[in-house]
Amino acid sequence: MLPKTPAKGMRDFLPKDFALRQQILATIQKTYENFGFMRIETPAVENIELLTSKQGGDNEKLIFKILKRGEKLENASDEQLCDLGLRYDLTVPLARFYANNVGQLPAVFKSIQMDNVWRADRPQRGRYRQFVQCDIDVIGEQSNLAEIELITATMQTLDNLGFDNVTVRLSDRRLLNALVARCGFEDEQKSAVFIALDKLDKIGVTGVIQEVETIAQGKGVEFVNLINRINSASDPLEQCARELGDYLPVEVKRNLEEILYVTGDLVTNGRVVFDVTLVRGMGYYTGTIYELSVDGLGISVGGGGRYDKMIGRMTGNDVPACGFSIGFERIALLISERGNTSVASRGTAILVDRDLESKQVLDVMQACRQARKSSNVTLLRKIKNFSFQVKQLKEQGYEAIYEYRNGSFGKID
Amino acid sequence: MLPKTPAKGMRDFLPKDFALRQQILATIQKTYENFGFMRIETPAVENIELLTSKQGGDNEKLIFKILKRGEKLENASDEQLCDLGLRYDLTVPLARFYANNVGQLPAVFKSIQMDNVWRADRPQRGRYRQFVQCDIDVIGEQSNLAEIELITATMQTLDNLGFDNVTVRLSDRRLLNALVARCGFEDEQKSAVFIALDKLDKIGVTGVIQEVETIAQGKGVEFVNLINRINSASDPLEQCARELGDYLPVEVKRNLEEILYVTGDLVTNGRVVFDVTLVRGMGYYTGTIYELSVDGLGISVGGGGRYDKMIGRMTGNDVPACGFSIGFERIALLISERGNTSVASRGTAILVDRDLESKQVLDVMQACRQARKSSNVTLLRKIKNFSFQVKQLKEQGYEAIYEYRNGSFGKID
Repeated sequence: MLPKTPAKGMRDFLPKDFALRQQILATIQKTYENFGFMRIETPAVENIELLTSKQGGDNEKLIFKILKRGEKLENASDEQLCDLGLRYDLTVPLARFYANNVGQLPAVFKSIQMDNVWRADRPQRGRYRQFVQCDIDVIGEQSNLAEIELITATMQTLDNLGFDNVTVRLSDRRLLNALVARCGFEDEQKSAVFIALDKLDKIGVTGVIQEVETIAQGKGVEFVNLINRINSASDPLEQCARELGDYLPVEVKRNLEEILYVTGDLVTNGRVVFDVTLVRGMGYYTGTIYELSVDGLGISVGGGGRYDKMIGRMTGNDVPACGFSIGFERIALLISERGNTSVASRGTAILVDRDLESKQVLDVMQACRQARKSSNVTLLRKIKNFSFQVKQLKEQGYEAIYEYRNGSFGKID
Repeated sequence: MLPKTPAKGMRDFLPKDFALRQQILATIQKTYENFGFMRIETPAVENIELLTSKQGGDNEKLIFKILKRGEKLENASDEQLCDLGLRYDLTVPLARFYANNVGQLPAVFKSIQMDNVWRADRPQRGRYRQFVQCDIDVIGEQSNLAEIELITATMQTLDNLGFDNVTVRLSDRRLLNALVARCGFEDEQKSAVFIALDKLDKIGVTGVIQEVETIAQGKGVEFVNLINRINSASDPLEQCARELGDYLPVEVKRNLEEILYVTGDLVTNGRVVFDVTLVRGMGYYTGTIYELSVDGLGISVGGGGRYDKMIGRMTGNDVPACGFSIGFERIALLISERGNTSVASRGTAILVDRDLESKQVLDVMQACRQARKSSNVTLLRKIKNFSFQVKQLKEQGYEAIYEYRNGSFGKID
């Protein structure tokens, strides 16, 4: 017998699951469109050179690679075997899309992408090998008008999805660089220090100290003390600027101040705060970075930042770019756990005898469509377990269920 | 530099392309939902055993296969190299979905699927390696109530998409079997004769005679004459029954008569006709088959049939099943060629000076949102080529464009 379960780590969506997901996606798209973003689509499959061009960080280890077709494959290496792969995110394909279509896009291009991505990760609760990402990006805008719109639009989307207490934590990749420079770390120690700092939530102060000590002996306590002084200040960004002095470029501080000032007033369902401990994993960020969480849950449900150097790798000329990605699967899980999800109305169902002849079926269909002046009528043959069938139909959202017998309709409650 | 074009045979969709496609998909889904169908989703990736189980016909030669991960691959064969593949249609995954979820589905399950499929076909005009199929299926309904609903719903969908003259050609796989039995072909010659008949449109009468002669010498003319007598009769189905006599099971004739009778009266934008030359390629069909065309174009834009034996290969018990697939890409092409596709309204755009400070930006956003009582406002910095920017914004669907200068808004026509 053939396998009947989906491939490992992947999911079937039943009608009620699909309906909820589609409804959430529609709300997200509509909100983003109201902010002037426009939805585009790229193929699920990309050339393997693009996917393995060192822009995807650790995700490049998780690519589903596609075998070449119609070639001798004996003794071939991975690289020789595969010419294509499934995309692991929507940012790398977007950069390619922009480079490919720039002539037909507006000077400042504001895109929406809502699509599946694939990662050959170890499946676990809430982590899948095919999952949906929702990204918005602004390409071609150098100023922080981009960041302001991305953050405002995303918080409005969460508001429209019923989340009335969200937090965006904000920092800047250049501020992180200043931080490690101020502490005297070497350039090649930088990314290891970032990784340690990123784990503060998980491993705590002692853990970070230990990890920094393995990178540069004697610097662990100094580094963590600096972070603590900034964190505990009444105005962490001011404190940070004081601590970093000339290490922090003045435009970096002004960038964060402006974003905090403008979004602070525009957003009604949460807050935007500076957080010196925010890191964001991807190496391609060049400026502002941010992460979104729903208050009380302590997990990230989205994030993004500025990546001004990625498109240049495809066009030869750098183009400023900035994005915000919502973790759709987490949002969908939170909404489904909230319960109270309404079932779409499916109209009227007519149950007919199992042996009704097809010629009579026509009369029934026409009679009930006319009677109810609606095409929203489904004709079904009765099954043996009649009460079970009626129960199922009600669960599916049929508002009215009729039984047809000897030329007349009887309503079933 | 990295590749900027999509993978061979695949496409990027610009905002206006995406909007049209999404609008068509929404019309299709809404119409099918009105007939009681419910949308589901399966993963793009399936286990390779499912995809290569001889249910996909020639499409199985076109599978994009996915390389196993984390294993030694030296000297391995194709089968040993790959454990997954991209689906080439939506019918085989649906059968697996049904087998996997039957306990949670209604006794008669009416599904909608609208999703990408992938085929490593040679790309050519109008043929792509990633394309969308729109399928509806009825699972668990033994009678031709299934066929009647599938045909009626699909014709209504085409009507709602603005096609007011469509034809469904109808036949039955069992009638084709009777036809070749009546002409005295051997069982093993059957599929070759079907393939020859299927080409009638392309190679003409002489071509079919020649091809049948290579299968069974001396039978070409007799076979084609039989087809011609049926085709040219005033009532082809009656003529077919007379010609085939006892070879044609009585229930096969009644099945077609009933479908013709009921759909003939329900459909307002076209006609349903019997066509003895209709073949349909897939080997899994067991009964009724049909194909949809838009009058005057002479190309098929959809088709389907009954496949009562497929689900049993996964569950051990046969379950009656019947489907209709719309060729979405062809429909989308026809609609886009029709032109006159409206651009969605995007609200108001405000153009501000390139060097406006972010703190002023907030005031502008709040002022114009309040003034217009709408959140549908986009703020953009002016680019050097101002008139080009305004032209682009109009093309994108912005209804009102304002210039902000020294504290006041000036409308741009």
